[in-house]
Amino acid sequence: MNFLEERIAADGVVKPGNVLKVDTFLNHQMDVELFDKIGEEFKRRFAGKEITKILTIEASGIGIACVAAMHFHVPVVFAKKSKSINIDGELYIAEVESFTHKEIRQVVVSKKLISRDDKILLIDDFLANGCALQGLISIVNQAQAEVAGIGIAIEKGFQVGGQVIRNLGYQLESLAIIDSMDDKTGEIVFRKQENDNG
Amino acid sequence: MNFLEERIAADGVVKPGNVLKVDTFLNHQMDVELFDKIGEEFKRRFAGKEITKILTIEASGIGIACVAAMHFHVPVVFAKKSKSINIDGELYIAEVESFTHKEIRQVVVSKKLISRDDKILLIDDFLANGCALQGLISIVNQAQAEVAGIGIAIEKGFQVGGQVIRNLGYQLESLAIIDSMDDKTGEIVFRKQENDNG
Repeated sequence: MNFLEERIAADGVVKPGNVLKVDTFLNHQMDVELFDKIGEEFKRRFAGKEITKILTIEASGIGIACVAAMHFHVPVVFAKKSKSINIDGELYIAEVESFTHKEIRQVVVSKKLISRDDKILLIDDFLANGCALQGLISIVNQAQAEVAGIGIAIEKGFQVGGQVIRNLGYQLESLAIIDSMDDKTGEIVFRKQENDNG
Repeated sequence: MNFLEERIAADGVVKPGNVLKVDTFLNHQMDVELFDKIGEEFKRRFAGKEITKILTIEASGIGIACVAAMHFHVPVVFAKKSKSINIDGELYIAEVESFTHKEIRQVVVSKKLISRDDKILLIDDFLANGCALQGLISIVNQAQAEVAGIGIAIEKGFQVGGQVIRNLGYQLESLAIIDSMDDKTGEIVFRKQENDNG
């Protein structure tokens, strides 16, 4: 197991309905030293790729994206979940269905923040059905920019999101891919990854 | 002017209604190298204070809090703006009125993430009327923990929030305090700070 899989095995809690609670270290309380390791590993996996900007989505992607960005020396943009009166001018807009909140929301990015010359690394904490990522890809496409890669902390490998993204030809690097989990026993089975640094 | 005031003067845009747009570097696009300097300056201003945890509020506080936390070597907790089905168990709850969105929202923190032994540094990007901070202070008080200090990037010094917090006796460090701004001329007047490192 790599460092993230070990942490999930130690501190993650499997709940009924295929819910994995990682709120003590990833998406409510945030272990920034762990995020730093995640950023270091993203840097390794996307070595040689030109990246000009990181794009994530509020709220729980922001922490990982910002700490990871320290390794790439690029700014982070986060897609906002609702139109704010503080954003004027033109917006890129995508619709995203939240697995957690069971609702469809618009996410927006100010057009001035992504240009057609940008090579974008998408970062998020979770990948399940892939709706959030599809929204971010749509925004990059609207900007006629390029998706240079996609870095995810935890992928639920038993849901369809990751396969769809890989079928589309993107370099998707999920540091922990869960093939199955059992809320009765608490067992979590991780997918073996060839590109794993341990 | 210090580094943050210089950046605000260069890239901030004053809009009617006392709105300061800093979305190209602070709260939509995020300059993580600037956040690193902000974290370094918070570390200097709170030197000697024991801090066990940083508490912020979603969404735009998260990036600054996480990068700053690298200087304090403590975890970050963010108050969530709505009850999520992924949070079970007991919650600390506070009501917060958003200046930007003109609405009252509940923010919640899982009780297991703050204990009475915690010395909490509150971090946020903006301080205006102080509602968000008051909510965070309320959550720390509910946990019977201690507010060790409050670090803010930009304070609107012409609104009441900062004075209320200082009257309550907290060590509030705002790296840029705006005394006035003019949307006609674009001029921003910063308050002179004695504790400024330049």
